[in-house]
Amino acid sequence: MASPVQKISVTGIKPTGEPHLGNYIGAIRPALDLASEYQAMYFIADYHALTTLRDPELLRHYTRSVAASWIAAGLDPERTLIYRQSDVPETFELNWVMSCLTGKGLMNRAHAYKAARDRNEEAGRSDLDAGVNMGLFNYPLLMAVDILIMNAEVVPVGKDQVQHVEIAADIAGSFNHVYGAGYRFTVPKPLIPDTDNARTLPGVDGRKMSKSYDNTIPLFIPASKLKKLVRRIPTDSTPVEDPKNADDSSVFQILRQFADEEVVEDTRTRLAAGGVGWGVLKDQLFEILDEQLAPMRERYEALVAPGSELDDILAAGAEKARARAGETLAAVRNAVGI
Amino acid sequence: MASPVQKISVTGIKPTGEPHLGNYIGAIRPALDLASEYQAMYFIADYHALTTLRDPELLRHYTRSVAASWIAAGLDPERTLIYRQSDVPETFELNWVMSCLTGKGLMNRAHAYKAARDRNEEAGRSDLDAGVNMGLFNYPLLMAVDILIMNAEVVPVGKDQVQHVEIAADIAGSFNHVYGAGYRFTVPKPLIPDTDNARTLPGVDGRKMSKSYDNTIPLFIPASKLKKLVRRIPTDSTPVEDPKNADDSSVFQILRQFADEEVVEDTRTRLAAGGVGWGVLKDQLFEILDEQLAPMRERYEALVAPGSELDDILAAGAEKARARAGETLAAVRNAVGI
Repeated sequence: MASPVQKISVTGIKPTGEPHLGNYIGAIRPALDLASEYQAMYFIADYHALTTLRDPELLRHYTRSVAASWIAAGLDPERTLIYRQSDVPETFELNWVMSCLTGKGLMNRAHAYKAARDRNEEAGRSDLDAGVNMGLFNYPLLMAVDILIMNAEVVPVGKDQVQHVEIAADIAGSFNHVYGAGYRFTVPKPLIPDTDNARTLPGVDGRKMSKSYDNTIPLFIPASKLKKLVRRIPTDSTPVEDPKNADDSSVFQILRQFADEEVVEDTRTRLAAGGVGWGVLKDQLFEILDEQLAPMRERYEALVAPGSELDDILAAGAEKARARAGETLAAVRNAVGI
Repeated sequence: MASPVQKISVTGIKPTGEPHLGNYIGAIRPALDLASEYQAMYFIADYHALTTLRDPELLRHYTRSVAASWIAAGLDPERTLIYRQSDVPETFELNWVMSCLTGKGLMNRAHAYKAARDRNEEAGRSDLDAGVNMGLFNYPLLMAVDILIMNAEVVPVGKDQVQHVEIAADIAGSFNHVYGAGYRFTVPKPLIPDTDNARTLPGVDGRKMSKSYDNTIPLFIPASKLKKLVRRIPTDSTPVEDPKNADDSSVFQILRQFADEEVVEDTRTRLAAGGVGWGVLKDQLFEILDEQLAPMRERYEALVAPGSELDDILAAGAEKARARAGETLAAVRNAVGI
């Protein structure tokens, strides 16, 4: 296990699709890099997904798929806690307690809710809450509780997610103010990764790789499919013999996230010298991707299969997570008079 | 236990004070009368009280006091389920599921929330949500879940509480619409007692007996204190020898809720004939009250004492309630894909 001087970090993973290369580079890999510096905890936010995902089979599949993906990608369940949100029912009881300490104004100002209102306004709807369910409205509160119940000190987030940690800190502060004599929550801080190295990838249409653009390269597809998708990445019509600027190429932008620095520089030089066609570059990218992804893919397939070792990993994670959450909840119940 | 043809009813009791005569006549006694016609379930809504009650000792005391009061007043835990809301954690997990099926508009229109906004508006506050916590805002949702998790068919409520049952029915309908192939909730109906017989009592200042007026006669005070409070009920200055109209008298209004019909009519006649002073009427009221309340008071004192039989009663209630709630939750989890 991690050394006791390491800070506790909590990260939620929403199971709303199968992971793609963009998720891997933008979220999974940086998170796993952090896992070595922190006492890291990851939870699959299956109950959060319920705000938008109403297909039971799909929710079950994504939940399993996301857990398998992270472990296949290198999360070591022996030293890093991984659990399903729904396996920690203490969260939902604490959620009610914290709701009594949370000003409604805090939720009114949450980005996702405001965006939904803006969309209604733009569409000319008189009811700005049209289509907004209470799951969406309460979402930042539940997310705060996911963090607070583990008494996380840091929460690794992208810049667009900082507000969630601020809300969690605010709610912790309210509780500590009212019930501090009986129990005090750790006030969490956001941990924003440095973004010098832009971590977005282009998709197979050249736009940012994103599920909503339907342009992704799934992380764990068979090699033959991977090759086909790589071939589909758009390139310009520069003739083979001409010099090429590597950084203008979507293919290169993906390659440089996966290849060693040496290989990246060598490729850049070869492209600038001319004589290397896009097809050659795509073959190189496929080889690099497949070399890295093949062993992960194998592990993923084994884990995602019904009745696999994943069940035991998640059961063990649930037990540890519940033990920790249960301690928090018991102390809170006592502090508030339940 | 109740016969299987009896409908299931659920009633929540908010522990925000010690019961007084007004609660007994307005809520406890009519509810216990209904308990014989239904398969009745009562829960002490301790987690609801948390929206306003932030004194842990007081919350603990009121929770115990309310449970002891209902049993002392005649609730038979052998045939009627009584449990603490906080002893059924399944409620809070289901609460999250149902929040995802609940339009925010439904909560916007809830009476208690609208009243809070109206108060802010009247006070000239620009933020109409000032002082509103998410517990208050989510309150009708949790109340719906308290009802739905037991699959209650009827909910005995006063006219001012009908909206809560309508909201519960609405949320059940949403769930059944989306996930009906996997699980269907019973859609509850309000059960509004006939109000021919106005069930409000005057307090010791002649206004409606209410905790907020600080004019109550607590249900379980010692006889000497009861006598003093009865003596304090205001009367007019009609001389002893003059005829009196019983129905104009606060003392009589209380008396007629506790005395046999024969005694009520006899008293009415004696007052109309003149020669009966208010002091005599008050002595009569005290005797009637004390005769009925003395055995209840004794039982209450025994139950409310630390380590009493009440602990076992609540533990047994919790076990039965959790078994029933757990079945509902398991079916819901399966239906939604958790």
